[in-house]
This record gives sequence, structure tokens and C-alpha cells, in this order.
Amino acid sequence: MYDAVIIGTGPAGLSTAINLKLYQKSFVWFGAKNYSDKVEKSEKIANYPGLGLISGADLNARFDAHMKEMELEITDKKVTNVMPMDDRLMVLADNEVYETKTLLLATGVMTAKSYEGEEELLGRGVSYCATCDGFLYKGKTIAVFCGAERYEREVDYLADLAEKVYLSAGYRDCRVDRPNVEKIGPIKGIKGGMKVEEIELHQGETIPVDGVFILRNAVAPGTLVPGLATEGPHITVDRMQKTNIPGVFAAGDCTGRPYQITKAVGEGNVAAHAMIEYLAETK
Amino acid sequence: MYDAVIIGTGPAGLSTAINLKLYQKSFVWFGAKNYSDKVEKSEKIANYPGLGLISGADLNARFDAHMKEMELEITDKKVTNVMPMDDRLMVLADNEVYETKTLLLATGVMTAKSYEGEEELLGRGVSYCATCDGFLYKGKTIAVFCGAERYEREVDYLADLAEKVYLSAGYRDCRVDRPNVEKIGPIKGIKGGMKVEEIELHQGETIPVDGVFILRNAVAPGTLVPGLATEGPHITVDRMQKTNIPGVFAAGDCTGRPYQITKAVGEGNVAAHAMIEYLAETK
Repeated sequence: MYDAVIIGTGPAGLSTAINLKLYQKSFVWFGAKNYSDKVEKSEKIANYPGLGLISGADLNARFDAHMKEMELEITDKKVTNVMPMDDRLMVLADNEVYETKTLLLATGVMTAKSYEGEEELLGRGVSYCATCDGFLYKGKTIAVFCGAERYEREVDYLADLAEKVYLSAGYRDCRVDRPNVEKIGPIKGIKGGMKVEEIELHQGETIPVDGVFILRNAVAPGTLVPGLATEGPHITVDRMQKTNIPGVFAAGDCTGRPYQITKAVGEGNVAAHAMIEYLAETK
Repeated sequence: MYDAVIIGTGPAGLSTAINLKLYQKSFVWFGAKNYSDKVEKSEKIANYPGLGLISGADLNARFDAHMKEMELEITDKKVTNVMPMDDRLMVLADNEVYETKTLLLATGVMTAKSYEGEEELLGRGVSYCATCDGFLYKGKTIAVFCGAERYEREVDYLADLAEKVYLSAGYRDCRVDRPNVEKIGPIKGIKGGMKVEEIELHQGETIPVDGVFILRNAVAPGTLVPGLATEGPHITVDRMQKTNIPGVFAAGDCTGRPYQITKAVGEGNVAAHAMIEYLAETK
């Protein structure tokens, strides 16, 4: 069992990881190896104290150097579910279970809304994880939303299994090019009763499908952790970054505005100290 | 009238100042020109994300460079009192009044406790400000607590006025050397009825004095701002760094643990955004 699991490799996750490492806690840090897209794409940042005017790419390079200096490791797996148990949390990442005493959610804020029908049909044809559920759709017809380049290998994996894939990309220049993959425009909603039946596009067109894979950076936090208290897209936390679930903490954009890198590192620091305190108290 | 007054030139104050400047707000920033002693004296800081392992002196140098790049100015005056009025706050600094719509308290946390009798006798012989009240003690006998090197010039000023000064220094190698200044050990308490009558030392010895000047980095926040909600040595704030007094915000060590630079800059950032929002709402 781990002392902690961190979900998210943006500034908040990094700040927590640095502190847990300094306190010699055992933990797994899930997220993209290239950190935060949002930081990387910031043209100029002027308000990170001590760094003057700096580009997002340069700041990310500094984060990377700090991570390497501290010998921190990122596990590039996607967490699809968290189950709070008595004295521990079960974290499901790419179909593997990780047991942990504490959890930090540093998942960023969803810029896109959920699709109509997404939450209702989750687990009934809607999936967030290709490697978890792909095998269910062997020889079938599916729709896939690919939210970032880093998910293209998951689309490829799905294209290996499914007979037909309707692909909606959330960014330009999606490089997936397979004979059984047909590119479509933005998805408006997902329809079905007991199971997914079809997707609806913005033009009103509908396409019958057996399943829908939604591959995007952030999953709505309430979907990830059942019972988690939220306010709109934000996780409710107290001044020590505690959520309503014992052992679960949150930091960064996912806890609310302002969406600022400096706020994120500050909250990551506070969360780490609160997690260390929690571990000491529950020992 | 200013948009804002910031008290404190540690990391939290700096973070707020940077953001207020970016938003082109008018403000006065009070504090020591050499920033935070606490940062300066940190041997090594490992958990300020993006900077790797860095000495406190180097981090302060980086803060200084950032400040200069943004053309921020520090006003080295000591704030002794804040009076909340209807729609504004009156801030008294070295006997000058500054009117402001918002105030950030980034005063650090008092590491020393108040002296016995200090709060009771404040304004009745106990003073925090040499330049404000020194003239009252011309030709008299006073005790002075000097908490840091930066206050030595205030001690000199008091020695010019008073006949006799009993000096208790809170650090090593105090350089004040005047014929009418006698160095004493730590002060235990201040005694008196309507007015200060004597100080008591830890050995039980008492010395009759007419007044006591306490020159230290942080004043208990509840003493500075009447009616401010506090919990022990900490100012009570919400997630947006708001205190119980409209227009008054707080950030950094003064709001509670963990006492961390990364937390302080994060809170300074959040406070700045909350202040900007407050200014927009009350316009």
C-alpha cells in the first residue's frame, strides 16, 4: 500500500510530489509525462514570483529540471476510477489497482462540458479508458472523442479491435489515419436507454454505435470519485485542501479560480503537508 | 485614495504586489526593503517548484530582480494602526495616514509571544513606533526591545530623545553603542496601572520606566486591525483570503501553517485576484 497517489502532472501535482519526496513518503504520480499543456501553451507568465517574465515552455522546462533533480517519476497511466474503502482508497489506472492511504486530485479543470448523456451512460457503453474496455468492442462499431495528441495511440488500439471507428478530434491535425477510422465533426450528445445506441452530431445527424470512448485530459471529478463534494466544475476543499472524503485532497485549477500557476503550487504545497499530517494521525 | 495597501515584503506581499501592478492598480507597499529575513536566512529551499535546490539568499535575490523588472517600489515605513471606516480603510504608517479601498496583511507570523501587559498598556506607555511616539519621552527613562538590526536607527533616535534607555535586543551583535543606552537581558513583562510603571526581567528584577518601545517585525494582527478575527497567532481567512472585515485580506504565514514560501506566494496570488474583484464590485 502506498502513502499517496497523485493524479495530475501540472504545477499543483508537481508541488505535492516534491514535498512528499522530501518527506520520504511512498507514492505513485499519474499523469502526462510532458506535464501541463496549459502551462506549455502559455505565451508569457509574469506573476510567478522569482522568475520574472517567462514563457510557459521555459517554465515547464524548469519544472522538468526540478523533477529530475529530485528523481521524481511520472507514471503515464490514466486513472478512471477511485473507490474509497474503510481505511484506504482503491485507485484504478489502466485496469490496474493501486491501494493508497491518501490521494491528491490535481486534475485541472475541464474546459469542455460533458456530452449530453455522458454521465447517464457511463459504464453502459460510455468509457474513458481504451485499454480498460476496448476488448468489449471487438468487431463492433464505436465512436471516439480524442481530446489530445497523447491519446492517439489509444485510438489506434481501438481501431485494431473495432470494425468501424467514428473519430471526433478535439484539436487540429489529428494524425490517426486508418482505413476503418472515419473522421467526424464535434459530437453533441450520446443517446441510448440501457446501453448506448447512437451519437448525435451538431448538424442533427445521428450515427448508430455500440460504444463511445471519451479520451480527454480531465474527467469530471465527481465521476472519478463517487460521493466527492463539488460546486459546478470545482472540487470543494477547505483551507487545508481537504475534500469531504477522508484521505482525499485536491489542489490547483480543479479547486476553483483563480486559474493561476502560482496558486496551484501553493495549494500543492499545503495539500502535501496536510497529507503528511493525515498519514501521521491515522498511523 | 489608493486601490490597495500591502503590509509586508515577504513572498506573499510580493506575489500580491506583482499581480496588482499587472492589473494597473494604485497601491502602497509597506515593509522592509531587504524583504523577508526568514527567506534570507533559510539555508536551502528544495520545494519552490521550478527552482530546484536554492539558498534563501539566492531566492531573495530572484525576488528582488522580479521586483525591479516590474518596477515595484517598497515604502519602508512601519504601519502601527488600521482603522476600518465606512467604505475605506485608514492606515497609519510612521504617523502618516493612507486611505485605501483594500488592504493586504502579509505580516508574517509572530515568533515571539507578546509580553505580559503589552496589550493592556498599549497606548498607555507601550508603543510600537519610535518616530510616532518618541517625542513623548524627551528627557525620560524608557525600555526598548529591538527585534532586528533594521530597527537600530529607531533605537538611536530614541536615545537622542530619552535621558536613559534600557535596551533588550532580540538578536546577537546589536551594534547600538551610546553612553545613555544600557543593555539588559530579555524582558518578561510590563507593569503599570493607568500608565507603564516598570519592566520586569526574567531574573525577577524590575526597572522603573516611563515608557516601553517594542520594535519587532510583526505586531499581533488583532492589535493592528481592531475587530479582526484571529485564531491564536493567525488571521482567520476564507479560501479567497478574505478576513472578516470588508476590504481586508491576508496571505502568507500570518494566515496559518504550513509556514512555506510556496504557500505564501500562492495565497498572495489568490488575495490579489480577490482584491481586484472586490474593487470591481464596490466601484
